[in-house]
Amino acid sequence: MATIVFCSVNKTAQTTARRCLFSHLKGLASSGESRLPLSCTHSPSVTFLAGIRCYPRGYSVRFMSHGTAGRAATGRTRRGALALIGAAAVTASAAVAGFLANANHFQRAEMATKVSRAAEENEQEGDILERCRGFMSPPVTDIGVLQERKGEMRTRMEMLIMETQAAFCNALEEVDGGKFKVDRWQRNEGGGGISCVMQDGKVFEKAGVNVSVVFGNLTEEAARQMKSRGKVLKGKDGKLPFCAMGVSSVIHPKNPHIPTVHFNYRYFEIEEEDGTKQWWFGGGTDLTPVYINKEDAFHFHNTLKEACDKHHHQYYPDFKKWCDRYFYIRHRGETRGIGGIFFDDLDSPSQEEAFNFVQSCARTVVPCYLPIVYKHLNDSFTDENKGWQQVRRGRYVEFNLVYDRGVKFGLATPGSRIESILMSLPLTARWEYMHEPAKGTMEAEMLEVLRNPKEWV
Amino acid sequence: MATIVFCSVNKTAQTTARRCLFSHLKGLASSGESRLPLSCTHSPSVTFLAGIRCYPRGYSVRFMSHGTAGRAATGRTRRGALALIGAAAVTASAAVAGFLANANHFQRAEMATKVSRAAEENEQEGDILERCRGFMSPPVTDIGVLQERKGEMRTRMEMLIMETQAAFCNALEEVDGGKFKVDRWQRNEGGGGISCVMQDGKVFEKAGVNVSVVFGNLTEEAARQMKSRGKVLKGKDGKLPFCAMGVSSVIHPKNPHIPTVHFNYRYFEIEEEDGTKQWWFGGGTDLTPVYINKEDAFHFHNTLKEACDKHHHQYYPDFKKWCDRYFYIRHRGETRGIGGIFFDDLDSPSQEEAFNFVQSCARTVVPCYLPIVYKHLNDSFTDENKGWQQVRRGRYVEFNLVYDRGVKFGLATPGSRIESILMSLPLTARWEYMHEPAKGTMEAEMLEVLRNPKEWV
Repeated sequence: MATIVFCSVNKTAQTTARRCLFSHLKGLASSGESRLPLSCTHSPSVTFLAGIRCYPRGYSVRFMSHGTAGRAATGRTRRGALALIGAAAVTASAAVAGFLANANHFQRAEMATKVSRAAEENEQEGDILERCRGFMSPPVTDIGVLQERKGEMRTRMEMLIMETQAAFCNALEEVDGGKFKVDRWQRNEGGGGISCVMQDGKVFEKAGVNVSVVFGNLTEEAARQMKSRGKVLKGKDGKLPFCAMGVSSVIHPKNPHIPTVHFNYRYFEIEEEDGTKQWWFGGGTDLTPVYINKEDAFHFHNTLKEACDKHHHQYYPDFKKWCDRYFYIRHRGETRGIGGIFFDDLDSPSQEEAFNFVQSCARTVVPCYLPIVYKHLNDSFTDENKGWQQVRRGRYVEFNLVYDRGVKFGLATPGSRIESILMSLPLTARWEYMHEPAKGTMEAEMLEVLRNPKEWV
Repeated sequence: MATIVFCSVNKTAQTTARRCLFSHLKGLASSGESRLPLSCTHSPSVTFLAGIRCYPRGYSVRFMSHGTAGRAATGRTRRGALALIGAAAVTASAAVAGFLANANHFQRAEMATKVSRAAEENEQEGDILERCRGFMSPPVTDIGVLQERKGEMRTRMEMLIMETQAAFCNALEEVDGGKFKVDRWQRNEGGGGISCVMQDGKVFEKAGVNVSVVFGNLTEEAARQMKSRGKVLKGKDGKLPFCAMGVSSVIHPKNPHIPTVHFNYRYFEIEEEDGTKQWWFGGGTDLTPVYINKEDAFHFHNTLKEACDKHHHQYYPDFKKWCDRYFYIRHRGETRGIGGIFFDDLDSPSQEEAFNFVQSCARTVVPCYLPIVYKHLNDSFTDENKGWQQVRRGRYVEFNLVYDRGVKFGLATPGSRIESILMSLPLTARWEYMHEPAKGTMEAEMLEVLRNPKEWV
């Protein structure tokens, strides 16, 4: 268990922490590691410092990718989050500040991954009700039902996706200063969801983090379509009770030097005629930069790789390839971004181990992305940079509307909540006829990578 | 044969014509028929007057929806267009100026339709080579081949689509002041096309007018897919020689009070095993306004109806319904715009009559749309109007990428020219989460019409 942020709650200590962070930021800026102009290292101090949480001496504070606890510690008690995971937790954004306060990105990523292992072991810690207090909204399933079924996978996964939503939303709110609009919605056929959207914020053009938990009956044909390997499932009178849940998110920042991120972690359960349950997990996290930054790419992929390697040494290489294949805009001959991981139909080696893997992945979302956001928060950009970002946004729209299986399935399914499905589209996009960057430009460098996916780790 | 513009080519006469047009424009503005502010009736005079062509006394000058002749008459001789259709022709934009110079939109639309009938009778007039001089680029097929096959439908249709492209591009260049970028492209498998795109002009955000003439061999399966009725076609060794050609266009103006227009006219020919030729026409013109203007809607639909009514009284009502059905964004429960006409698989009553109908439609493109452009050219607008336009542009993208058969077919076909297929996408678009206009606003009025298509004529 690594101790990362460790200070007493007095003014002197806070000032020391601030000074310390400033000097690290200055170091980053002057080392050429970041495009952050020197003059900016002081002005965004409030934003950066918001990520540092102070606890009484003696607390052993760890990185954690999904915690919302820090909020409570700094007086934001509305979600009663400190109680959530107890004294062993600290905010996701504290983890991020920790990243920034260290000298070497690669070491920091490694450290974050290691410490999050310990956090994972605590999934079952704490009462359901207490844990729910940290969510963006009460869970989709009634809390009483969740308490009754505490040990079931449906409950454990619903808690995980709710926690992932809260951790990510909190981290984004902290860096942006804006607030997510939280919409609860119900599905007539069974279940519902919670959509959190922040639009036209200071940092984020559009940020959406969506949870859905739906259930009902599937036809055998629909069940076959849902499972990409097309396994034949036998229903009672042709009908199969199912439950599907997931958390998904797309974040489009304003600054073209901050990449777009997308993740989605999901769980399916289908009951066959004889009562046996078929279940599988799917998911992934991928990055779509407007410009290539090799350090960011390494950090992002390496964080994912470390989370994967804890579970199986083939997961990262296999799921990295799958990601490049999946997020491919065929008619352009380009990938959507620089990938990450993508997997589906994961039903081995055991439900417990598959869940642990998904949990590890979900908990890397914040440490994968937020350090990159903070690093480029004040990068300056030109109209040309913004124009290229808008062209890439157009390609994002093309992928999502033409190829994305989730979007296609959603748009074709009566009763879908269209606004939640299409919240992945950027606020603004652009289509220029025959746009082709000039040779040797940063735009051409980006395209080259999209046309020939690379190994980053 | 109606005589519309009639003056001698001396300065005095030109001045008189200008004065005359000004007084009509003033009349329009003060009558409340147009949103054109009074102060604007003088400033855009050059643009408006550019539409008036002066011929020596004795010329009998007619409306014509496809002519490019006027250019030559005003000294733009590069396309040698005056020679094209001889003394009986005048530019499309002259027709537009004629529209504007008359008091009543409805009468003007009627007149334009009537006079264009006479023009249609002249399709075969003039030498192929002479007619080609008026095009944006030499036709796709070698001129020698076209001359040899002068009487064949493939040739007549290729000449029609090339003329339609030229007429529309000329009319748009005249109102915008900008120039189309003309790209010729070849298809490895046979044929090619000419894409004309004007981007970020004064009036038009993005204007694309595309011609393509492609041929080769289709599989029986692909042939079945191309024909929406799914007729079974028998090929030699499973292969069917085919030829497909068409003109298509999407125009996205900058001013939110000027609607987007789309049209497409196409012809297919497939040769069966025994040498018999299967052929059919398809096409349509439809309008996508950002705000409802009943007068524009009437003018647009009525111009189409009159072109249809000359050929069959059921064409307009049937093809209007087909258009509303086709341009439907199912996941939004909205049509893309206020429709127009749409038809496919037209192979009756005879090839000659079907072609005449398509020719009538193609020649209404300019009189359908340009009067609306000129009318709203100087309408003032707010940031809110622009924002709503961008949201509607987003819906346009959704339709084109998710539902449009042509786009889907193109994206899925190896060797397609993607830039020509996707030139229909707007330069800019916007997706706002949960955007819903307030009751009683002009935006809500527009949505109401999109949710419940209307009869406009």
